[in-house]
Amino acid sequence: MNEILQNYSKKVDERLNKLFDLKGIPELLRNAMSYSVFAGGKRLRPALNLMANRMAGGIQEETLDIACALEMIHTYSLIHDDLPAMDNDAMRRGKPTNHVVFGEGHAILAGDALLNFAYETMLQNALKHSKNMQNHVKAIKIIADAAGPKGMIAGQSCDIEFEGKQQSKDELEYVHNHKTGAMITASLLSGIIICSPSHEQIGAVIAYGERIGLVFQIVDDILDEAGEASKMGKSTRKDQQAEKLTYPKLYGLEESYKLAERLTGESVAALSIFGDKAHELVALASFLLVRNH
Amino acid sequence: MNEILQNYSKKVDERLNKLFDLKGIPELLRNAMSYSVFAGGKRLRPALNLMANRMAGGIQEETLDIACALEMIHTYSLIHDDLPAMDNDAMRRGKPTNHVVFGEGHAILAGDALLNFAYETMLQNALKHSKNMQNHVKAIKIIADAAGPKGMIAGQSCDIEFEGKQQSKDELEYVHNHKTGAMITASLLSGIIICSPSHEQIGAVIAYGERIGLVFQIVDDILDEAGEASKMGKSTRKDQQAEKLTYPKLYGLEESYKLAERLTGESVAALSIFGDKAHELVALASFLLVRNH
Repeated sequence: MNEILQNYSKKVDERLNKLFDLKGIPELLRNAMSYSVFAGGKRLRPALNLMANRMAGGIQEETLDIACALEMIHTYSLIHDDLPAMDNDAMRRGKPTNHVVFGEGHAILAGDALLNFAYETMLQNALKHSKNMQNHVKAIKIIADAAGPKGMIAGQSCDIEFEGKQQSKDELEYVHNHKTGAMITASLLSGIIICSPSHEQIGAVIAYGERIGLVFQIVDDILDEAGEASKMGKSTRKDQQAEKLTYPKLYGLEESYKLAERLTGESVAALSIFGDKAHELVALASFLLVRNH
Repeated sequence: MNEILQNYSKKVDERLNKLFDLKGIPELLRNAMSYSVFAGGKRLRPALNLMANRMAGGIQEETLDIACALEMIHTYSLIHDDLPAMDNDAMRRGKPTNHVVFGEGHAILAGDALLNFAYETMLQNALKHSKNMQNHVKAIKIIADAAGPKGMIAGQSCDIEFEGKQQSKDELEYVHNHKTGAMITASLLSGIIICSPSHEQIGAVIAYGERIGLVFQIVDDILDEAGEASKMGKSTRKDQQAEKLTYPKLYGLEESYKLAERLTGESVAALSIFGDKAHELVALASFLLVRNH
């Protein structure tokens, strides 16, 4: 799986490099944007998009810019999340966070610019594929809904609101489903929507996405509880220090892992209607379960 | 003119009220978004969009959501601009700024959410008018380019960079053209592009937009220099205190006003190819020149 992911990651990085060869924008702004986009992310969301697109019989070239835009939106959310007024993180992926390097003002602007540039990129791509325009607009709309105040930002808002307060299981799940899950599902959906999928195919991909989104978060919590700071590239046990509710706190380490296993099984089962074509996403689900960083 | 503007403003407010009747988003986030959107803005950008659309023979209903999205993008930029890490403003339009009321974290998120919701709104509108989809995608792309790192955010970036430094005339114009001008021109262009305009019509609207954008800024500088805090609803002479270059500093009050007059004349002349249909935008240009708040 690692090799497949690296191939996708390479393709995405090549395209991102071209997209960020930006002329006519202030150097400091461009540097602040590029710094975080090229800070060693796993390119998971782009890979989900491209894998789902391939599974549905799509042409990869048509969705590559959408894949890159997903990474821009992910990166913007990390930059803003790390700000002193939010999570106040000084390190991310083993490097100083954006505001530590460029100052808070430019970190805010770099995030704004990345969110906006994601839409510029997807809209330009839609105009390039005007024969399939309707599906492209649907794909961008799916991503916008997931990134916006009904999706990812709802999760971030509650995350701040719940800080330092007792959280319930429902609240924990609300935050994760919105903060992480929504964009994971949207990454997959936007990849297949380009191919005019059936209702059953859409339903299967949503079922898969919702489950691996949760697995991703549970495993993150487990690694945070059990892992070493050096492997994660960010401060671990931070969530615990901040008295944040986590899956290991709620169910214990062992039961949390069992839950992740069960969800992984369900996610794989959901893709059965795609047959062999689902092999990459099937392998990815297992990979997300057993990852150690 | 005031009455015409109020009619547009009323139409836009009615639609914004419907769009912000949002279900299923956290209350605090919704309140933070609504607070600044309904804080008494003049709705200038939406009016420009709707007036340009009418001038080009468009159906107002088709571009009303785009007009509302322009106001969301404008509002997000003000919220982020007012943050302590940026301009650090505590008052705006006679009210406490967003971060003063909701805290910095939620002010950042409310801005992010408004930018994102603007795209959600425009994309939904494009799907509703699928027969004219190509033009709608073009309109959204024009707005995205103007709002992004090549447009408004470039202006904000330089604005921060130049703070406390000696500025040249070119730098002053760069900031204004990008920070304010780009979105003013995009408001107009996105209004006519829906109607498949000719190259000449596009050129005329750009010429008009660039000029009234500058007039808007020059008059802002003049009012800031000469005006009273009570009329402006924000601290005046603030730019001067921060040693920011302004048009009155560069040319003196009288010459600045003459420049604004000349640009207004040119802007009106540019619209001659639209004949009588340009009457609203012609009146607006004069109104922007003589406004006193």
